[in-house]
Amino acid sequence: MNFKIENKIKNSLGRAGMISTSHGDILTPAFVTVGTKATVKSLSPEQVREAGAQVVLANTYHLYLEPGEKIIKESGGLHKFMNWQGPTMTDSGGFQAFSLGVAYGNKLSKFIAAESPEPEEIDEAYAEEKDKKAKITEDGVEFKSIIDGSTHFFTPEKSIQIQNDIGADIIFAFDECTSPHASKEYLKEASARTHRWAERSLIENSKLKIKNSKQNALFGIVQGGRYEDLRVESAKVIGEMDLASRGGGFQGFGVGGSFVKEDMATAVKWVNEILPEGKPRHLLGVGEPIDLILGVENGCDTFDCVAPTRMARNGTLYTKHGKINIMNAKYKNIFEPIDEGCECYACKNYTTAYLSHLFRAKEMFASTLASIHNLYFLNNLMSQIRESILNNTFPDFKNNFLENYKS
Amino acid sequence: MNFKIENKIKNSLGRAGMISTSHGDILTPAFVTVGTKATVKSLSPEQVREAGAQVVLANTYHLYLEPGEKIIKESGGLHKFMNWQGPTMTDSGGFQAFSLGVAYGNKLSKFIAAESPEPEEIDEAYAEEKDKKAKITEDGVEFKSIIDGSTHFFTPEKSIQIQNDIGADIIFAFDECTSPHASKEYLKEASARTHRWAERSLIENSKLKIKNSKQNALFGIVQGGRYEDLRVESAKVIGEMDLASRGGGFQGFGVGGSFVKEDMATAVKWVNEILPEGKPRHLLGVGEPIDLILGVENGCDTFDCVAPTRMARNGTLYTKHGKINIMNAKYKNIFEPIDEGCECYACKNYTTAYLSHLFRAKEMFASTLASIHNLYFLNNLMSQIRESILNNTFPDFKNNFLENYKS
Repeated sequence: MNFKIENKIKNSLGRAGMISTSHGDILTPAFVTVGTKATVKSLSPEQVREAGAQVVLANTYHLYLEPGEKIIKESGGLHKFMNWQGPTMTDSGGFQAFSLGVAYGNKLSKFIAAESPEPEEIDEAYAEEKDKKAKITEDGVEFKSIIDGSTHFFTPEKSIQIQNDIGADIIFAFDECTSPHASKEYLKEASARTHRWAERSLIENSKLKIKNSKQNALFGIVQGGRYEDLRVESAKVIGEMDLASRGGGFQGFGVGGSFVKEDMATAVKWVNEILPEGKPRHLLGVGEPIDLILGVENGCDTFDCVAPTRMARNGTLYTKHGKINIMNAKYKNIFEPIDEGCECYACKNYTTAYLSHLFRAKEMFASTLASIHNLYFLNNLMSQIRESILNNTFPDFKNNFLENYKS
Repeated sequence: MNFKIENKIKNSLGRAGMISTSHGDILTPAFVTVGTKATVKSLSPEQVREAGAQVVLANTYHLYLEPGEKIIKESGGLHKFMNWQGPTMTDSGGFQAFSLGVAYGNKLSKFIAAESPEPEEIDEAYAEEKDKKAKITEDGVEFKSIIDGSTHFFTPEKSIQIQNDIGADIIFAFDECTSPHASKEYLKEASARTHRWAERSLIENSKLKIKNSKQNALFGIVQGGRYEDLRVESAKVIGEMDLASRGGGFQGFGVGGSFVKEDMATAVKWVNEILPEGKPRHLLGVGEPIDLILGVENGCDTFDCVAPTRMARNGTLYTKHGKINIMNAKYKNIFEPIDEGCECYACKNYTTAYLSHLFRAKEMFASTLASIHNLYFLNNLMSQIRESILNNTFPDFKNNFLENYKS
C-alpha cells in the first residue's frame, strides 16, 4: 500500500490524495461502503461500483461467525468470494466488544454507527447497561455468538489471523471501542490496553505477512474518548509505534470511538495534529454529510458507516436540501427524480412516484434504488470535496453545501 | 403487433416464431418474466434483461390497488414507470376472481401459480372453501382489497380501461379463472360468461384504441377446465370471435385455468388444435421446466409464472439435474457454481458456498442471485427449445433434457 498527498486545504489539516493497493487506487477523501457480511445489502458489486464506491469494508466479527473465515480463504479470499475486484478493508472486531458489551440489549446498540444520537439518548441508554454479551480482559474479548449463543474468544492475534484469512487489502489492529460516556479512568485503562493490543496486532501481522508473502496494510487505531490528553497520548503511541525488526509500524491509522456529534471534529483534530502526516487516516463509523465535511477538514482521508444503506432501507434519502422520508404521502405523485440534478442510476431512471410505490409495496427493489442513491450521494459529495481541495476552493464548497443542506 | 411462424415441430402443434411489438421482438417460444407490481422482485430491469428476459408481465389487479393505474399513466405508462424498455404484458385481473374467491384463505391460494399441486392437495384445499373475498356476477367481479379491505368492482370494460391506462403492449380479455375441481355444470356456465366478457373486452378495447390511437394487442382467453367438449367449444368461440366492425378479433390467445399437472398438456392440445394457427398463444401461470416443454410441444408460444422467482427467494434453484435447495448443509463449502456450465451472472461470478452464505445470513442479494439464476435457466431452456425447433431436433432435445432433469 502506498499513500500520496496531492494537495492540502490552507490553514487546516485536510488534504486530497491517493491510496494505492494491489486491487486498485482510492482517490481521497473517500467514503468506504460497508458490506458487513461480504455483501453490500441489496446491491450487486456492479451496482456498488456504479454508485461511485471505490472501496468496500467487511466485518471480521460477522464473517468469523458466518460463514467462517476458512470458507472465505478457501474461496480465494474476500475479493473472489464476494466478486468485488476493488480495494477492500476489514475492521478488527473491536467494535463488537462495544456493541455487544456495554451497548448490547440497550438503546445504544440500536443507533451505534447509524446517526449520531443526542447526548440524553446516550445517557439513558448507557444507564440501561445490562445483559452484556462480551467480557474484556487483558488477553482479549470473550463474547457470545449472536447466531447460536456459543462462546468465542478474540485476541489481537486471533483478530489478525482471521483478517489475514479473509484477505482484505487494509486491515485494522484489534482495539477496544469505548462508549462516549465512559469515565476518564476507564478510558485511560482501555486506551492503554488498546496500545498493548496494537503492538500485539503489529507483531502478529508482520509474522503472517512474512509467512504468507502477503501485501496487506495494517492500520493502528487511536482511542481516548473525549479527553484531549488521552487522545494526544494515544495518537503519539500509535503514531510512533514502529517495530523496525518486524517490518515497520502501521501503514495508516484509524480514529476510533463512538462520538457524540459535537465532540467529533475536535477529537479528530487533536489526533490528526499528532499522527504522521504521510500516512492515511480512517475515521471509523462516521457517515453523515456534515460530519464527513468536518472530518476531511480536520485531516481524515477515509470514512465508513452503515448509515447511508441502513437509512435507505428505511426510506430515508439524501437530497441537496437535506434528508427526506419517501413514505410521506406527498411523494406518491411526484414525477421527478428524488434529487433534482443527481446523476445516480435511481435518479436518472426512476421517478419519486415509482420509489414511493416500491416502498409502499415493500418491494426489495426499493432498498436497491434507495441504497444506490444514498451511496452515490456520499460518494459524489466526497468527490466534490476532493475536487474543491485540488482547486483550493474547499471553504467555498463547504459554505455552499452547508447553506443548502438542512440536517 | 405481428406474429410470424418460423418453423414447426413435425407431427405436433409446436412452433418457433417471432412476436413483434412496438417495444421490440419476442423470439418464441418464450418465458415471460412476472413483475407483479411493476418490478421483478429483487431485480433491476438490467438484471432481468441480462437473465435473458424478453418480456415482462405485470398484474392489473395489484397495480390498480397500488399505486393506482392513473399514477402509471401519468408517469408515461408501464415501460417508463418501471424502466423496462422491452415488450410488456398485463393480465386482466380475472385470475384474482379465483385466487381471492374460491381459493382465498385456503391452501389452494398458497400454491396457485407456483408449483403444480397434487390432486389430493387440491381436494383438501377446495373442501376448505370459505371466507370468499370476491363475488362473481354477470356484470363482473366484486372483490375486497387485500390492502385495506375496501370494496371494488371489476367489469370487462373496467379491466380493459385499467390495462389501457397501464399501457402494456399485450393485454388480456377479462375472464373467470376456474378451479381445476369445479363441477362441469359450473365450468360450462363460467365458460359461457367468459365468452360474453371476451366480447365486451374486445368492444371496449377497440373503442379505446380508436380514441387514444393506441397500438396494444388484446388476447382472448380460452377456459373450459378439464373437459374436452368445453375446451373445444371455448377455443372455437374465442378463436372465431371477430368483431369486424370494431377492428377485428383477438390478436392472440391465452389458455387459462388452474391445471392439475397431468391434465395440462392434454387440455392445451385440445385448445390449440382449434385456435387459428397464425396467432400467438400464451399459456397462463405455467413455468415448470417439464410443463414448458410439453406446453411448447402442444402449440403454446409464451408462458408466464411466478414460480422461478418465488422459489428462488426460498432458496430452491434449478439445475440441469433437477431442483436443489441451497439451505442443505452440503452446499456450505462447494466452491463451484450452482449449475456447472450455466452462463448466468450468478454462476459465472459466485460459488455455491457464497450463495449458501447469503441465504443463511438472510441477505437480500441472495434473492437477487437466485432469481437471476432461475430466470436464466428458464429463458435459456426456451432458447434451446427454439433452437431445436429451428434445427428440427426438438424430439432429441426433449428426450435429452428429460433424461437428465429429475423433477
